[in-house]
Amino acid sequence: MIVQWKKHVTRAALVLAFCISSNGYAAEDPLPSWNDGPTKQSILDYVTRVTKEGGPDYVEPKDRLATFDNDGTLWIEQPMYNQFVFAIDEVRKQANQHPEWKIKEPFKSVLAGDMKAVAAMGDKGMVEIVAATHSGMTTVDFDTTVRQWLATAKHPRFKVLYTDLVYQPMFELLNYLRANGFKTFIVSGGGVEFMRGFADKTYGIPSEQVIGSSGVTKYGTWDEKPVLIKEPKVLFIDDGPGKPEGINHFIGRQPIFAFGNSDGDKEMLEWTAACEHLCFMGLVHHTDAVREYAYDRDSSVGKLDKALDEATAKGWTVVDMKNDWKAIFPSVKAAQ
Amino acid sequence: MIVQWKKHVTRAALVLAFCISSNGYAAEDPLPSWNDGPTKQSILDYVTRVTKEGGPDYVEPKDRLATFDNDGTLWIEQPMYNQFVFAIDEVRKQANQHPEWKIKEPFKSVLAGDMKAVAAMGDKGMVEIVAATHSGMTTVDFDTTVRQWLATAKHPRFKVLYTDLVYQPMFELLNYLRANGFKTFIVSGGGVEFMRGFADKTYGIPSEQVIGSSGVTKYGTWDEKPVLIKEPKVLFIDDGPGKPEGINHFIGRQPIFAFGNSDGDKEMLEWTAACEHLCFMGLVHHTDAVREYAYDRDSSVGKLDKALDEATAKGWTVVDMKNDWKAIFPSVKAAQ
Repeated sequence: MIVQWKKHVTRAALVLAFCISSNGYAAEDPLPSWNDGPTKQSILDYVTRVTKEGGPDYVEPKDRLATFDNDGTLWIEQPMYNQFVFAIDEVRKQANQHPEWKIKEPFKSVLAGDMKAVAAMGDKGMVEIVAATHSGMTTVDFDTTVRQWLATAKHPRFKVLYTDLVYQPMFELLNYLRANGFKTFIVSGGGVEFMRGFADKTYGIPSEQVIGSSGVTKYGTWDEKPVLIKEPKVLFIDDGPGKPEGINHFIGRQPIFAFGNSDGDKEMLEWTAACEHLCFMGLVHHTDAVREYAYDRDSSVGKLDKALDEATAKGWTVVDMKNDWKAIFPSVKAAQ
Repeated sequence: MIVQWKKHVTRAALVLAFCISSNGYAAEDPLPSWNDGPTKQSILDYVTRVTKEGGPDYVEPKDRLATFDNDGTLWIEQPMYNQFVFAIDEVRKQANQHPEWKIKEPFKSVLAGDMKAVAAMGDKGMVEIVAATHSGMTTVDFDTTVRQWLATAKHPRFKVLYTDLVYQPMFELLNYLRANGFKTFIVSGGGVEFMRGFADKTYGIPSEQVIGSSGVTKYGTWDEKPVLIKEPKVLFIDDGPGKPEGINHFIGRQPIFAFGNSDGDKEMLEWTAACEHLCFMGLVHHTDAVREYAYDRDSSVGKLDKALDEATAKGWTVVDMKNDWKAIFPSVKAAQ
C-alpha cells in the first residue's frame, strides 16, 4: 500500500512539474494528448475563466468540484463493463462452493461459457451475478479479491491489465483540473467498492471522492474483531437520475464541471448545467474503431443517444475520440 | 456565501498562524482551551507520534482520517437535540398548511405545547415529526430554511444562536488536527442536510466531509429546472452500527482518530480501534452542570453508559468536561 502510494505521488508530482512552470503559470500545453482544436480549447478556456481572480466568471477554489463518470469516460467499457467481467470470473472461481449454480440461471450459462445466453437475460441476469459475487464476505476480503483480479486479469483485445486501459487524455484532464484547484470525484454506475480498489492508485482519486452504486453492509464482530459484511441488498443505484441524487447524498453540492459518455450521465450533466457558476459539461463520444471502439446510439454498453442530442442542442463539449485524442491509452501503443 | 467563506478562511488562517511557528514546528500550546493534564497530553502525544516522519508510529498524510460525532461532541445537545428543536419550530410554522395536524399525534401535542406528551411518544414520535418537516421540498429550499433557523433561533438556556454553542476546545482540536495533515469528517446520527447548513462555516468542514442520517431524494424537473425533492423515506441511519457502515459507505476507509460522546458512538470507536495504525479513540463526558450540563448513564439525550465502561476498560481518552476544559463555548462567557 505504501509502495503504491509512493508510486502515485511520484507520478502526480511529475505531471504537476510538467504542467506548472516555475513562476506558477500554466505551461503551454497541460493536455499534450489532446489534438489542438475547439474541443481542447473549450476546456482550456473554461479553466482559465473560472480561475481568473477578479474576472466575471471566477469561482472560489472551494466550489471547484468536478465529477467524472468512470466506465467509458475514464477507462474502457467494451466489449462489456470491466466489473461484469470480474463478476463472471468470480462465478467461475466460486463455482465449487456453489454446486446449485450448475442448474441455476444465470450461473448455469456463465459456467457453460454461453455469454450470448447471459446477455439475453439482460440487466436481471447481470444484477443477479453481481449480487451473488459481491456479497457474503467482509469489505476487506472483497477489496483484496478486487485488487488481485485487477493485478492479473487482462483485456481480451488489448491483452493488458484493465487499469492500463484508462484514457490518457482524461488522466491529463484530471491532473490539469487538480493543478487548478479543482477537487475531482468519480460518479459512476459501477460498484463503489470495486472502483475504490483502483481509483486512488490509477487516477489519484481517494476513496472518499468515489461515488458509485452501493450495497448494504452490516457491522458485526468475527472472532471479536469488528468487520463489515457485504449483504446481497442494493442500497443505492448511481445511474441516470441516481447520479444527481448520489452527488447530493455524498457531496451535498452541485459540481461546476462534469464529464460523461452515455445516456446514464444525462441527468448529471443537466444538473451541472443548472449550477450557479459558469459550468462545463462534456461527453466522450467513442468514434475510434481502430484504436478503441466506435459506438453510440445502438450500443447495449454505454448507449449514447438522448444525451448526444441534448449536448448538440445545448452546445456542450463533445469529444470526438478519433479526431480529438492524439493517444488513447498510456501504455498499449504497440497493440493499437 | 462568498462572504462566509472569506470569514472562514480568515479564521482558519489565524488559527493556523497561531499553531505553527515560522520554522514549521508546532508552537507550545495549540489547544489553549484545554487544561494541562493527561487528557490534553494524550492528544498531543498521539499527534506527535503519528506525524513524526521516520518514527515507528508514522502515518502517511493520506491515511490521517479523523471522524467526529456532532451532537454532544462538537456542539450542545441538551435539553434536546437542536435538530429536533428545529423540527418542532417547523411544525408550528407549517401548521396552517396542515389542518389535519390539529387532531393527529404527535403534531397535536407539539401544537398544544405539550412536550411531555411528545417525549412520551419516544423515537416513533420524533421520527414522524422529522420526516414530516424534512420532506416535500427541494434540497435547496430545505437548506434555506435551515440557514434561516440557525441565524435566528436561540437556545432556551444560553440565549444565543445554536452555532455559538459549539465547544471551543473541540474547535481547537479540529484545527490542530488539520494543521497536522488530518482530514476531518463529521459522522453523526443527525440529518446530513441539516448539518451541511452550518458545518462549513462553523467547523471548517465542507459538505462532502459531513456524514449523517439521510433520506431518499428524487431527481426531477420543476418549471424545466432540475431539482432534487426530499422524500419522507429513510435511506440510511448513521447511528450505532450505522456509523462504521456510514464511514465505509461515504469514506471507504477506516479512520485512525475518532471522537464521540455517547453509546451511539461505541461501534465507530470500536471500528477505529481496529485500524492498522496507531489509533486514537476519545469520548466527551459531560460533567459540568454549571457551565453546560452533567449527564451520562440515565440521559435520554446522549446516553453514555456502555461506551464509558468500554473506554475505561480499554484505556481510551475520556474528556472530563468540568476539569479538562478551561472554556466551553467561544462566546457565551457572560451567560455561564
